[in-house]
Amino acid sequence: MNVAELILKKRDGFALVEGEIAFLVKGYTAGRIPDYQMAAFCMAVFHRGMTAEETLSLTRAMQQSGSVLDWSSLPGLKLDKHSTGGVGDKTSLIVAPLVAAAGAYVPMISGRGLGFTGGTLDKLEAIPGFDVRLPLPRFRAVLEQVGCAMIGQTDEIAPADRKLYALRDVTATVESISLICASIMSKKLAEGLDGLVLDVKTGAGAFMPTLEQASDLAQSLVDIGNGLGTRTVALITDMNQPLGKAVGNALEVLEALQTLKGTGPRDLALLCEKLASRMLSQTDDPTEASLARTKITQALSSGRALEKFAQMIEAQGGDPRVIDTPTLLSQAALQTVIESPSEGFVAGVNARTVGRVSMALGAGRETVDSCIDPSVGILLNKKIGDRVEKGEPLCTVFYNQAARFESVRQRLLEGFVIASDRIEPPPLIKRVVE
Amino acid sequence: MNVAELILKKRDGFALVEGEIAFLVKGYTAGRIPDYQMAAFCMAVFHRGMTAEETLSLTRAMQQSGSVLDWSSLPGLKLDKHSTGGVGDKTSLIVAPLVAAAGAYVPMISGRGLGFTGGTLDKLEAIPGFDVRLPLPRFRAVLEQVGCAMIGQTDEIAPADRKLYALRDVTATVESISLICASIMSKKLAEGLDGLVLDVKTGAGAFMPTLEQASDLAQSLVDIGNGLGTRTVALITDMNQPLGKAVGNALEVLEALQTLKGTGPRDLALLCEKLASRMLSQTDDPTEASLARTKITQALSSGRALEKFAQMIEAQGGDPRVIDTPTLLSQAALQTVIESPSEGFVAGVNARTVGRVSMALGAGRETVDSCIDPSVGILLNKKIGDRVEKGEPLCTVFYNQAARFESVRQRLLEGFVIASDRIEPPPLIKRVVE
Repeated sequence: MNVAELILKKRDGFALVEGEIAFLVKGYTAGRIPDYQMAAFCMAVFHRGMTAEETLSLTRAMQQSGSVLDWSSLPGLKLDKHSTGGVGDKTSLIVAPLVAAAGAYVPMISGRGLGFTGGTLDKLEAIPGFDVRLPLPRFRAVLEQVGCAMIGQTDEIAPADRKLYALRDVTATVESISLICASIMSKKLAEGLDGLVLDVKTGAGAFMPTLEQASDLAQSLVDIGNGLGTRTVALITDMNQPLGKAVGNALEVLEALQTLKGTGPRDLALLCEKLASRMLSQTDDPTEASLARTKITQALSSGRALEKFAQMIEAQGGDPRVIDTPTLLSQAALQTVIESPSEGFVAGVNARTVGRVSMALGAGRETVDSCIDPSVGILLNKKIGDRVEKGEPLCTVFYNQAARFESVRQRLLEGFVIASDRIEPPPLIKRVVE
Repeated sequence: MNVAELILKKRDGFALVEGEIAFLVKGYTAGRIPDYQMAAFCMAVFHRGMTAEETLSLTRAMQQSGSVLDWSSLPGLKLDKHSTGGVGDKTSLIVAPLVAAAGAYVPMISGRGLGFTGGTLDKLEAIPGFDVRLPLPRFRAVLEQVGCAMIGQTDEIAPADRKLYALRDVTATVESISLICASIMSKKLAEGLDGLVLDVKTGAGAFMPTLEQASDLAQSLVDIGNGLGTRTVALITDMNQPLGKAVGNALEVLEALQTLKGTGPRDLALLCEKLASRMLSQTDDPTEASLARTKITQALSSGRALEKFAQMIEAQGGDPRVIDTPTLLSQAALQTVIESPSEGFVAGVNARTVGRVSMALGAGRETVDSCIDPSVGILLNKKIGDRVEKGEPLCTVFYNQAARFESVRQRLLEGFVIASDRIEPPPLIKRVVE
């Protein structure tokens, strides 16, 4: 096969067949096809798109570019969830131990935050000592022992995606639905899962602002998952305002602990239970599926989910005493309350604004090389629908550098919309795509 | 400036400003911007196009990536012509000495053939000893002494184009009007010309099959030339059938000599006179312009043009005895006449077919690395409009490998269309774009 001819074919809007896509992905991963040809190909894909079949072929080729994990020696379901990224989304920290406590295995490979969205690995690393870089044998051992384990990308899993993503990042070819879907799903499907639940965010703080766009993305992801033999379902959830009340790594770990203890914010607790139940329902056995909700509720109320979290922290080198002594988490030196300039009802808490401000304080990465300060962030005192008096706290900002805070104070305030009329909180789960 | 952001801007259909384009071209030429980013940019340009202003900026940046020749020490006009490529197009070999004999300078930097179209350099190299690789000082000396000189691309002239073209060739980004225009014009305008005449071919054997496409291309090229301060005009000429009767390097040199002697085919002689007159008319002086036609006719009929050609051959290391002893040109060992299978009138001589067959015989390059056999080719006995009897020669094929000839015999025959009704030869010059 001739690479330039394959680029030409895509450039001119024709669909590539499975063998052609596999040839490109294999050749690129092995270094036989140079970056410049792959860059031209990605830009052609950006402009021409890919058919569902092509996207499936691409995902399969990328998934098979490395190891596909095999847990067949472990009894029971192997499940995972994946979020398309949002602000204050610490569900993975809660859902993984929750589902493990309900009897399934959660071999979770997560990512880092970039831009205004947070990343699970950054949150986990706010726990003193927690190691997200376990080699695969150790990952397997933790999973076997605890029921859940959470690590970062490894060289063994979907190496084509890592190479391709780095290229797309510098060639303005990130924003292609097909390439995004293949990137997400190739990694997740290499985890060797029985079932996968996707949390596709929509709204101001999400990659997909509108419900329609989010639904299209969700449908593509779900089709790929099911097409490659992993039961997949997607919840489309609100990301106009941050999820829960905490934004910032240590603050989010704290909120995850509260949620596992039953004292977390209502929206976060609700979404975690929904995600966990859906995960446990990804089985052929209708009896098992019908019990999912009950099992999750019990896993939480019994304290077993919290216990699983403690076990995982310990197994991955972290200090499990954070469970009972949250002050062991990194704490910011300074904090300031942002007061409401008027009375009324909170009509908006712009998730993107809060995410950007949190990043600017040091909680996130402006570029992949940025260093993260786990202690900084924002705690929301009010969310959409809440009544607020003039002078009452809207949120509390945790920071270490006064100059950084001053530079974002006004922006943060502008993220809140106060209206005079009562307003209903937005529905959290907007649609289920399966 | 951030390269990925510039790619993004073009990807999303926005126009880049001059400084941004110059930044890309400079950075790429200097090796600061990697191939993969430029490849993505080219593919984005392919899909989004460029405004006239962007194309002008791109051409200027590429022109200025190397030396721009300065002939201000030479008196009189510095002129050149450029053809978009066709089959049997040996006009450069005739026009350059013709214009030089009429008193102007022709510093011509030409290209090689690729695919079914021929290249001036390959034709010149069919002359024993002719050196197309003169260093610039020697090029200048020949020009000064003879009035015309013909060489290939040098490292000094528009290096950005060479690097970019090599990249486009392997990333399926050749067929972009803006990139094509910038590539052509950056090199020509680096020749330091007062005037430029473009010969934009249209028809079956041309890059632009339709008159409309050819006109659009011509207008872009003319606008760039004039926009960058070189008087530019384009003739749109027929390339449905080959130009003249000879196709193949030595055969074309022979035909060029015949034309300089006044015994060449009528269509070729006519086009050469038109091109040469137009070149000489590219001046501010209306008196000079009005004399152009007469000067060209005299330069030809007086034998001075032929003399210039002989001088240039000698100055560039070639054997000028070919002028009087054409048998010094490389000759094929075998020749076969293709006879007409029926009587009637020639309604078509497919230029693309003849070009491909000639290439298959060894006259052209299938890939850039192919070796050329100067002796092979095709001599047309009939052209469109000619009466032909059954069994009368349509063309004569010159070749060295019988197997090669047998593999193309049928294809060549299919390139001829014989009709029962009389047909007019197509007009040679279809439009003038200025």
